[in-house]
Amino acid sequence: MPRTQSTIDLNSDVGESFGNYTIGLDEEVIPLVSSANIACGFHAGDPVVMRRTVRLALDNGVGPGAHPGLPDLMGFGRRSMDVTLDEIRDYVAYQVGALMAFARAEGGGLQHVKPHGALYNMAVADPTIWQAVAEATASVDPDLILFVLGGANRDDLKAMGRRIGIRVACEFFADRAYNPDGSLVSRREAGAVIKDHDLAAARVLKMATEGRVVCAGGEEIALQGETVCVHGDNPQALALVRRIRETLANAGVAIRPVATFIES
Amino acid sequence: MPRTQSTIDLNSDVGESFGNYTIGLDEEVIPLVSSANIACGFHAGDPVVMRRTVRLALDNGVGPGAHPGLPDLMGFGRRSMDVTLDEIRDYVAYQVGALMAFARAEGGGLQHVKPHGALYNMAVADPTIWQAVAEATASVDPDLILFVLGGANRDDLKAMGRRIGIRVACEFFADRAYNPDGSLVSRREAGAVIKDHDLAAARVLKMATEGRVVCAGGEEIALQGETVCVHGDNPQALALVRRIRETLANAGVAIRPVATFIES
Amino acid sequence: MPRTQSTIDLNSDVGESFGNYTIGLDEEVIPLVSSANIACGFHAGDPVVMRRTVRLALDNGVGPGAHPGLPDLMGFGRRSMDVTLDEIRDYVAYQVGALMAFARAEGGGLQHVKPHGALYNMAVADPTIWQAVAEATASVDPDLILFVLGGANRDDLKAMGRRIGIRVACEFFADRAYNPDGSLVSRREAGAVIKDHDLAAARVLKMATEGRVVCAGGEEIALQGETVCVHGDNPQALALVRRIRETLANAGVAIRPVATFIES
Amino acid sequence: MPRTQSTIDLNSDVGESFGNYTIGLDEEVIPLVSSANIACGFHAGDPVVMRRTVRLALDNGVGPGAHPGLPDLMGFGRRSMDVTLDEIRDYVAYQVGALMAFARAEGGGLQHVKPHGALYNMAVADPTIWQAVAEATASVDPDLILFVLGGANRDDLKAMGRRIGIRVACEFFADRAYNPDGSLVSRREAGAVIKDHDLAAARVLKMATEGRVVCAGGEEIALQGETVCVHGDNPQALALVRRIRETLANAGVAIRPVATFIES
Repeated sequence: MPRTQSTIDLNSDVGESFGNYTIGLDEEVIPLVSSANIACGFHAGDPVVMRRTVRLALDNGVGPGAHPGLPDLMGFGRRSMDVTLDEIRDYVAYQVGALMAFARAEGGGLQHVKPHGALYNMAVADPTIWQAVAEATASVDPDLILFVLGGANRDDLKAMGRRIGIRVACEFFADRAYNPDGSLVSRREAGAVIKDHDLAAARVLKMATEGRVVCAGGEEIALQGETVCVHGDNPQALALVRRIRETLANAGVAIRPVATFIES
Repeated sequence: MPRTQSTIDLNSDVGESFGNYTIGLDEEVIPLVSSANIACGFHAGDPVVMRRTVRLALDNGVGPGAHPGLPDLMGFGRRSMDVTLDEIRDYVAYQVGALMAFARAEGGGLQHVKPHGALYNMAVADPTIWQAVAEATASVDPDLILFVLGGANRDDLKAMGRRIGIRVACEFFADRAYNPDGSLVSRREAGAVIKDHDLAAARVLKMATEGRVVCAGGEEIALQGETVCVHGDNPQALALVRRIRETLANAGVAIRPVATFIES
Repeated sequence: MPRTQSTIDLNSDVGESFGNYTIGLDEEVIPLVSSANIACGFHAGDPVVMRRTVRLALDNGVGPGAHPGLPDLMGFGRRSMDVTLDEIRDYVAYQVGALMAFARAEGGGLQHVKPHGALYNMAVADPTIWQAVAEATASVDPDLILFVLGGANRDDLKAMGRRIGIRVACEFFADRAYNPDGSLVSRREAGAVIKDHDLAAARVLKMATEGRVVCAGGEEIALQGETVCVHGDNPQALALVRRIRETLANAGVAIRPVATFIES
Repeated sequence: MPRTQSTIDLNSDVGESFGNYTIGLDEEVIPLVSSANIACGFHAGDPVVMRRTVRLALDNGVGPGAHPGLPDLMGFGRRSMDVTLDEIRDYVAYQVGALMAFARAEGGGLQHVKPHGALYNMAVADPTIWQAVAEATASVDPDLILFVLGGANRDDLKAMGRRIGIRVACEFFADRAYNPDGSLVSRREAGAVIKDHDLAAARVLKMATEGRVVCAGGEEIALQGETVCVHGDNPQALALVRRIRETLANAGVAIRPVATFIES
């Protein structure tokens, strides 16, 4: 029987502005979440934006995390690249270190690391990439928590984290349909994205309290996650986050930075 | 009367290769110096090169330092840019953090920060830039040592460091002529660069032991420095470093990373 | 007596989006102007945006122009850099050629070149930079027209263009106050930017028909320009462009791409 | 029976230096070849290097060509990226245009286009990429010649070129072993690279005069190419080029830019 959680983390990608370019509604979404995945300059973000975003997270009691991506600003880190595991380790360490500098400078600490875009998807497809990211993260600071997409392989990923010496948090996607094996339904398929806010919020609540999700085909499966990915790039997305917060609050589920409740 | 030093630091800019591009003779110069100024990806260097160079420094007992530059890879960080003090602070923090990640990952610690090229020259011309660099460095880690060009303003720069909470090391240039006010003779003037190896080595020894240097015009002035800048980008430069080492060894002056002997 | 113009060109900076980042209201401003200054990838813009923007200009009968900038995406090309005249020539030629490829690919031709941001300001302060830009432009295609800020030195700039073999169009700023010497009032001074739309439109009309402008201090001077710079980055700016069009239309002044009426 | 060629083109990748980084022996290899594939700033090269290299090619009667790559300076364009066909078209047009500017500025014309590294390999694996590159090239200038790897599909690629309205030149690799289907033996297999200079030169001669090559397994196949790829990045490579020139000269085969002899 899945454990009942009375606490869950909400995370969102932020700090994706760059130079003269503004993207996302960071000032609005950060107060609504408990963990902030902050871009680190490779696919988005720049030093000025990074400091401002770390400051904003800390001011709101939100756990700042590094959101390292592939070195592809023109493609926003969404295009997979044929990089080696060593390159991945070095790119992750570089970006985590850069963001950690701002966390320290602003009097806080870094909470977590979540790979971005194509790097995340490449890791989902090839667990040796999760391992490379975990190793790089642990080598910089073993107190960091790594966010992964966990489904049927949740136990494997948790075990990998223990082996490498880093805590692993599994992520649930509020607005995405799941396959019976715990993987995400591909965006190319109809129904991959759940647009009904009530339904999405109800799914988050069910995952947070029962550790279960109803799949695209109707089948219910066990699926545990410590953190829920939400978006803040448009007013619709913000409305969904507010809906999820309400639904969780009404059910007595607390929203807190994952570091405050994740088990070692 | 200037204090007699029996110990001096030799520093060199390294880790300037990038991707498929190799520059400098890092494997040869690193064993000859005691502090390594490692490029951080803005004007030179990349994550793969940074890790390898940190490893090489640690393996040779050399203090690894960050060598942050302006964001101008095409210009190798040698072209001054009209950046704000806030941008400087953020660029320095970013790069110091990135390099610190590799120092931690490789089991060492970062020793120092030395701005590169145009950023260094801009700071020499405008002390508020030294202050911005010092503040950024201290905010990331107050145990780091900042390398500055110190002449007549040595006491001011040391006081600035104490105020900000960071140690400041003054740098002496082995192969550059000095003006009576302790500044460097501009490269545009004849005799700015000292090409005679014996003379350069003798000057380093005199500065290290007497805290004095003979200026371009013949006048002798007091000039104290804890670290001496040398180069490793060609065989001639390496020959000069070897000559300096010999000269110092013959006179009983030890060469050590600046962190081992700098006063707080 | 200044010649009466019955035709004027309106130009606007467009194509400044980059990758996932959108900036400006290109689809709205392009139909309102007659010349489009399209970013070329150094300070803004990317190949995908460039093609799309050229297409949009051609579809609207708007003259596409290259808007080359300094290689500083993070600073949006607004920070002056210590580049050499040779570097400027090469950066301009590169960017003009890149944009010309899209003009040819989309079945049109390139009309003009206007340097962006810091490069423009550097040229205003140092005419040898206008000359370097003119030489680079002429070397790629002598049929291109160079946009410059012309005041008291209009004749000098026109003469420079003839010497180099390129037509020079002088630019008037719709929303900027002028000094009696024909230069722009610095943005640091109060009143530098004219916010009253009626006043700005009236000034454009006066310049277009009488070749005269009333300066900040009240003095009226001669000031001729073939093209008027307007903005399209926010709804207010669009409203001003519409106001200017109305005012010109009511006075019988035609708005056309500068190439259709500029004298050789 | 394959036609006897009395003329062949030798091409080499050049202009790969960047800013302060020098790579390749351009001044030595350019006089030895008849076509120069010049990097265009995405994977290597910069505007200053591009102009200098175009100048060097023209001074030596060598046909300048664009060598467009993926936007990955850190990976030297050698890492495949998940780019769309539209992105490929736009990246190629941009880079071809940029180089064409220097060819025009230096009083010459661009001869050809050869995709670099990962982009070339991606096209070999997926002919729709050859088509996208051909379309982009033709859209900028239909007089340009596209270099492709042609084996069994030579006729298909030539037909594609005619359909799109561009000439296609097939390339032969002097130092690579071939499979019986006309493809290159993978570098991962033993014997993929032919190190014996006499053998490599003899193979070039046989291809140039008989249109045939002996495969890795001993089988002889028909393989026609108008241009032969050679390298200039080290003294060994230069020695091979000299050997090939000698062998061809002794057999009365002329080495000329492909544009001077390719059939429409």
